[in-house]
Amino acid sequence: MVSKGVKAVIAQVLDRVSPKVEERAKILGLARRCQRKVRKSLNEMGMQARVRIEGSVAKDTWLSGEADVDIFMCFDVSVPKRRFRPICLKVARKVFKDVGWIERFAEHPYVEAWINGTRINIVPCYKSKRGEWLSATDRTPFHTRYIKRRLSEDVKKEIRLLKRFMKGVGVYGAEIKVGGFSGYLSELLILHFGSFLNTLRNAHRLGKDIIDLEGYYEGRYEEAKRFFMAPVIVVDPIDKYRNVAAALSIQRVSEFIAASKAFLSEPSLTFFYPLEVTPYPLDVLLTELKSREAGILVVKAGRVVAVPDVLWGQLYRSMRAIAVQLKQFEFKVLRSTAWSDEESAIALIFELESTSLPSIKKHLGPPVESKEARSFLEKHLGAPTTYSGPWIEEGRWVVETRRRYTNAVTLLRDLLSDGGETIGVAGLISQAFKKSLRIMVNEEVADFYSTNINFAKFFTEFVVGKPPWLQAA
Amino acid sequence: MVSKGVKAVIAQVLDRVSPKVEERAKILGLARRCQRKVRKSLNEMGMQARVRIEGSVAKDTWLSGEADVDIFMCFDVSVPKRRFRPICLKVARKVFKDVGWIERFAEHPYVEAWINGTRINIVPCYKSKRGEWLSATDRTPFHTRYIKRRLSEDVKKEIRLLKRFMKGVGVYGAEIKVGGFSGYLSELLILHFGSFLNTLRNAHRLGKDIIDLEGYYEGRYEEAKRFFMAPVIVVDPIDKYRNVAAALSIQRVSEFIAASKAFLSEPSLTFFYPLEVTPYPLDVLLTELKSREAGILVVKAGRVVAVPDVLWGQLYRSMRAIAVQLKQFEFKVLRSTAWSDEESAIALIFELESTSLPSIKKHLGPPVESKEARSFLEKHLGAPTTYSGPWIEEGRWVVETRRRYTNAVTLLRDLLSDGGETIGVAGLISQAFKKSLRIMVNEEVADFYSTNINFAKFFTEFVVGKPPWLQAA
Repeated sequence: MVSKGVKAVIAQVLDRVSPKVEERAKILGLARRCQRKVRKSLNEMGMQARVRIEGSVAKDTWLSGEADVDIFMCFDVSVPKRRFRPICLKVARKVFKDVGWIERFAEHPYVEAWINGTRINIVPCYKSKRGEWLSATDRTPFHTRYIKRRLSEDVKKEIRLLKRFMKGVGVYGAEIKVGGFSGYLSELLILHFGSFLNTLRNAHRLGKDIIDLEGYYEGRYEEAKRFFMAPVIVVDPIDKYRNVAAALSIQRVSEFIAASKAFLSEPSLTFFYPLEVTPYPLDVLLTELKSREAGILVVKAGRVVAVPDVLWGQLYRSMRAIAVQLKQFEFKVLRSTAWSDEESAIALIFELESTSLPSIKKHLGPPVESKEARSFLEKHLGAPTTYSGPWIEEGRWVVETRRRYTNAVTLLRDLLSDGGETIGVAGLISQAFKKSLRIMVNEEVADFYSTNINFAKFFTEFVVGKPPWLQAA
Repeated sequence: MVSKGVKAVIAQVLDRVSPKVEERAKILGLARRCQRKVRKSLNEMGMQARVRIEGSVAKDTWLSGEADVDIFMCFDVSVPKRRFRPICLKVARKVFKDVGWIERFAEHPYVEAWINGTRINIVPCYKSKRGEWLSATDRTPFHTRYIKRRLSEDVKKEIRLLKRFMKGVGVYGAEIKVGGFSGYLSELLILHFGSFLNTLRNAHRLGKDIIDLEGYYEGRYEEAKRFFMAPVIVVDPIDKYRNVAAALSIQRVSEFIAASKAFLSEPSLTFFYPLEVTPYPLDVLLTELKSREAGILVVKAGRVVAVPDVLWGQLYRSMRAIAVQLKQFEFKVLRSTAWSDEESAIALIFELESTSLPSIKKHLGPPVESKEARSFLEKHLGAPTTYSGPWIEEGRWVVETRRRYTNAVTLLRDLLSDGGETIGVAGLISQAFKKSLRIMVNEEVADFYSTNINFAKFFTEFVVGKPPWLQAA
């Protein structure tokens, strides 16, 4: 049974996500022009390569207004991988000479350009044989072919609905910043579950079952679970040793499950098209922070030059390392998050129950009959940091002693003054801290908040704290 | 090897604890006079009974200046137990008509009087056959006989040393207030270990081995451990089913172990004769409390009329119940203790890391896929107590919400306004709370501190927090 509400919402979304004839012609024209130009410039360089349109444009599963054009250059396996980067750059210089472009490099080089608001990626790969992959992008042509063969116009609709839903609830994108569902993964889910609604209805099974369209692991699911070791396992139909959902975090899975549940019970367009966040006016923000006696710490630094996957990987790693330290010194970390506009600044944000702790703490010592008892007593008996004791409790010496750090800002300043690499802050983040560290507490964030609208939006979302689709539910 | 220091201290202690001829004559004279008077008054009542001097005076193991005279009336088993109390009272009225006396009643009635600074107890029991005990005190004559047969002048010295040491370090006395070593237990320890120093040297083995002088459980120690289920097991030589150390708490055992260790490494008279505690002058106390940003709560009430074992049992039980509540509401309880002068007042004392908590707290909700998710969201979404969220964390809904109690005093006032019986405060304590509850924080204790010297001493000891013998170590 599909409710009227669900039907109505779906109809509206379908209308918005399906490209009209005009737009389709425009994007395909753009893609083919790029393809020809790439082919031509490779020819001029005397390079043999098959040049193809890949990805959602090739599969016709892209969303209206959000097309990404992927042009793949498939080289013979005799071309050494170190030549990928110079070839890419050379091609880009020719193809995008009028529009400008940027080099991207995560584990694999590629270039990106924007033409009339559409992103074009030029990506090198090998003409690998199936199963004999030589570079990270070699599988893509196989993925495109696998999906295309199984598409009908109806299936495409279901895929577009699911992609838009995933974007709307913030779980779309396999990049490290998001750790969500890739386009290919969403397509496989539709092939598996048959429809958008059926995928939502079965979302809660994602972490439990294995999705294995080609039946590689039939009757051996437990074995496959041990092999892949991931929250969600979707076996790649063109490579039985690859989990398409490997980059998917448990966090995004949970959010997808919760959003699916919420949408099915109270359907709304907001799940697909969330309201734009309006940052709190500064005075509202400050009142809000005051009312909750907030303990929000913002650890900020200037620009970090790195491709997004490296930047976000390092931001998250650094955030976790600092949270561990805060907890070690007994500050209660309610939540933490990382922000960057990928241009001018980075920030790690920690909300604590309180930024200050009582000066007194109980310190557990060794068992009374142990060898260490003596040195413990020598250290604490009559020491200036001892408030009470030592006394005996449950067979151990215990003392009430002065806490080393009663203020989280002082602690962070001490830990990060040298960049914090020793406590686990990642290299680039540590360098940025050394150059331009600022630690702000609560209302001290006002200046930065007022000058960076991107941060202001993010910080407002953080303070509100609930997923945007939840307002509707 | 016994160090010179140890020898010197022991010599001094022996000199002080061994009664001189005069004192011995005085105490024995007093005991025999009482014995005769009791016998006479029983005869006048037409009661058949064997009247004996029991306990440490009978065994000659009492400490100079601290004799307790125990007069036992051993009745024929045909006398109904309900007659014990009226007989006791009648005897007391005659024997102590000039000095006054008080009735004591724990599980067994007896009367107590003071003559020239010496306590006299008159205790009823049955002439039971061994193993066919009819009342709690029937074993005492057997204990007296068992010990007396095994005493030499040297062994008596060792017992006196051990008793004084146990008194000095605060672990002597099987009453509920202390939960320590009884006189009989200390005597058995000397019989087992051979000497005072050997007992101290082997103190750390008390919780591990079983002491079984008559070998009732030879080869079946594991069985005995399961049977007795206590921190320390000392099988009663006259009753294989009784653990003489049953009332001994793990706390006192640990303290005895620690004190033994400390004395052996740094012998001092202080272990036997601790310095009298001088209460802090009020201004010193207040400065001390201020310097530590203390969170000391004193929950006080007026007099509770009960025999000490009942009073202390109820005080400790109530203290634990309140501490559980404080912890439940997330206050960090560093330690708690109970005080009473057994006359005018009772008090439960709790030291908290802080008496106030941040207003914000993280509240864990149900898993996103559970049935309960919906009602959790309905409760917290947009609620006036919600600061941030709900959001999803590790697969569960989580919300930042306002803490119900941010102040420990407010919490206790709410919990105890009706006496607190529902949260586990014991009956008599609860009644006292209903009549005259006062909750004081930190410096608010000043008035009571200034007017009750007994409390002032206790409170000073609590703030100092270390065992008195530790100053010397």
